[in-house]
Amino acid sequence: MQTEDLILVSVDDHVVEPPDMFDGRVASKWVDRAPRVVHKDDGTDVWSYEGNEIPNVGLNAVVGTPPEEYGIEPTSFAEMRPGCYDIRERVRDMNVNGVLGSMCFPSFVQFCGQLFARTEDKELALAMVHAYNDWHVESWCGAAPGRFIPLSIPPIWDPELMADEVRRLAAKGCHAVTFSENPSKLGWPSFHDSHWDPFFSACADEGTVICLHIGSSSTLAITAPDAPFDVLIALQPVNIIQCAADLLFSPVLRKYPDLRIALSEGGIGWIPYFLERVDYVYQHHHLWTGQDFGDRLPSQVFKERIITCFIDDAFGVENRRHLELDNVCWECDYPHSDSTWPNAPEIAMKYLSDVPDDEVNKITHANAMRLFHYDPFSVRPREKCTVGALRAEATDVDVSLRPRRASGQKHKTLAADLGAIAERRS
Amino acid sequence: MQTEDLILVSVDDHVVEPPDMFDGRVASKWVDRAPRVVHKDDGTDVWSYEGNEIPNVGLNAVVGTPPEEYGIEPTSFAEMRPGCYDIRERVRDMNVNGVLGSMCFPSFVQFCGQLFARTEDKELALAMVHAYNDWHVESWCGAAPGRFIPLSIPPIWDPELMADEVRRLAAKGCHAVTFSENPSKLGWPSFHDSHWDPFFSACADEGTVICLHIGSSSTLAITAPDAPFDVLIALQPVNIIQCAADLLFSPVLRKYPDLRIALSEGGIGWIPYFLERVDYVYQHHHLWTGQDFGDRLPSQVFKERIITCFIDDAFGVENRRHLELDNVCWECDYPHSDSTWPNAPEIAMKYLSDVPDDEVNKITHANAMRLFHYDPFSVRPREKCTVGALRAEATDVDVSLRPRRASGQKHKTLAADLGAIAERRS
Repeated sequence: MQTEDLILVSVDDHVVEPPDMFDGRVASKWVDRAPRVVHKDDGTDVWSYEGNEIPNVGLNAVVGTPPEEYGIEPTSFAEMRPGCYDIRERVRDMNVNGVLGSMCFPSFVQFCGQLFARTEDKELALAMVHAYNDWHVESWCGAAPGRFIPLSIPPIWDPELMADEVRRLAAKGCHAVTFSENPSKLGWPSFHDSHWDPFFSACADEGTVICLHIGSSSTLAITAPDAPFDVLIALQPVNIIQCAADLLFSPVLRKYPDLRIALSEGGIGWIPYFLERVDYVYQHHHLWTGQDFGDRLPSQVFKERIITCFIDDAFGVENRRHLELDNVCWECDYPHSDSTWPNAPEIAMKYLSDVPDDEVNKITHANAMRLFHYDPFSVRPREKCTVGALRAEATDVDVSLRPRRASGQKHKTLAADLGAIAERRS
Repeated sequence: MQTEDLILVSVDDHVVEPPDMFDGRVASKWVDRAPRVVHKDDGTDVWSYEGNEIPNVGLNAVVGTPPEEYGIEPTSFAEMRPGCYDIRERVRDMNVNGVLGSMCFPSFVQFCGQLFARTEDKELALAMVHAYNDWHVESWCGAAPGRFIPLSIPPIWDPELMADEVRRLAAKGCHAVTFSENPSKLGWPSFHDSHWDPFFSACADEGTVICLHIGSSSTLAITAPDAPFDVLIALQPVNIIQCAADLLFSPVLRKYPDLRIALSEGGIGWIPYFLERVDYVYQHHHLWTGQDFGDRLPSQVFKERIITCFIDDAFGVENRRHLELDNVCWECDYPHSDSTWPNAPEIAMKYLSDVPDDEVNKITHANAMRLFHYDPFSVRPREKCTVGALRAEATDVDVSLRPRRASGQKHKTLAADLGAIAERRS
């Protein structure tokens, strides 16, 4: 397999929602209350909604800017690469990076649509979730057929409404929904509570994958108040390890045998160690804890049901025989700071060069296509889907780094406003 | 290498301090104020000290009891296997398990001797730390020359006193000291603060290894209030991963190039993934965070300076080429519930059978001997140190399981008294 022959489908990218996203999508009674972008006198852009300003229009959307500036969040659309929020530019940025398909997580509404859960008027909130998801499926993904895997946000305050929305979106071809790596940390019941059963049940029925992205518990792994940012960034996967254990020993997977859950941006290199650990714990302790996996082991349930996802994880790929290779998916993370854009194919080839072709294909696109009901080849001939073919369509795309600001500030210790960056991902 | 030819030195076991430990070890002015064991009317034993009762005489000391009872802590000496607290029985239990050498962490005083840090009268507190360490070196380790690696507790409330104690103990041949995986979580300054410099400096000077045991931040990885115990147990290593990142990006290792730190019971299978992650974070972000490792990478500093320790970690052993093999040490964890007693040699051989002899020797004893200044062969001929030779001396030791109580309770959700088990280790 040569780099230009790879077919790359990323199950973790991010959309910075464009200012016009609600235009024409809400009933007239809600038009004045839908979120809208306000350009402020200081040059920043914010979303305005129900009397509040939401400043993170460009949370970690640093793609195309010099690493020296990664510590400073873009605060306006003008500071971002247009591919962050403009669908035509996004497709061009995918092409120049050789990426065929992309699943995009939300930005300003937060990973689980928490923004709408905080809306007092729940009729309004539900209308906004519907508008958001319709925009995502029709205007974002729909603008470039065969290039995106749609991903809905849930009306997280009501599991029955969540189930309805999963079914409504499945009918539109959307078979992925974002949820929290730990709803308990967000103030809702945990995975151990039957509260979420209608939602899990609907996802199992519809073949809809629940995607738990790192950071979606709004919890940071803070070791000490004076720890440098590097510690925080290095430890971002820790919460997803906690999520994996929490989920595995919860009733969820055993109660819904058709349900599949993705650990988005979770990485894979830690998983073989983790599986050995959970089996050890199970075998050593189940006689007093009462856990019951029948004739199976926790590791078997994990391997069959958990979709594992990574950006750049050579050790994990090297140890793929310890994973269920049919459930391993590749990610690009555009436009965040961990993204491999615009060199994703070359970086991927570094850890894929010793992997047999059929296994490369599983990791780079075949698993994602099967697991997320995504069929790009029905729209675009396979030979036009390769890195080489896509890049040939994007020879005019400028990938040079562009500084956002004249001079950069530096952050060396955890900022006081950690709450605001709780969903920040490096 | 056959099982009976292994030489096993464990750098992580635990002593349950015996009731007579302070006898004859404190000046007359302190005799009445030293901790003492009180046998209570309800049949439990507690330590009594400065008006407080400390009930955890047998915290997780479940060795030799059926797994069904692991959830219930022994609350009296009568409920424990005598090897937990009796040095002669301990040596017999080591022999029957084929274990030559052992380093024992404290129990009722907590991992960092926090009990004495809470003592208002600091003159008394220091006298108790001295008495504790003298007992440990002379009466516990000293009772069986060549069989133990001494490990001191620190007067953690004063870094200058800590330095003095490190030097005092080094003169007695003790080159290991327990400390916290995260002192910030215990209310003290973090690794990022110069507060601890006198202590780190003394350890570097004396070649004393600082041992950070899982659980020594008294922090539990609690995912949700209703999560089953299995989640908590499975996630015990998570805090040590956080510790590793915290330490690596702190000034400590770079400021004291001779200092070595052990991640006790930390496991090893997660480390290759972690090292790839920290290098990625460093290369991706150092331009704005200001981290400076000169011409090295964080992974190189980790490999050279961090002693990694495991009980049963087949995946980690399989991937030992990604570690610095000269810094990997084996553990037994007697008498805690994760211990492999009395089948440690057979369990070790499962993951060591494909490992070349010279590498087996490093892992099982040679590294521990070099790193902790431990020389059993000067006391006992090498051929008498093997599993086979030691077991031949212990043919009369009964290793059958003995129930502690007539009927067992079961804990299925996190107990209300999580604080009390913050240092509990499974």
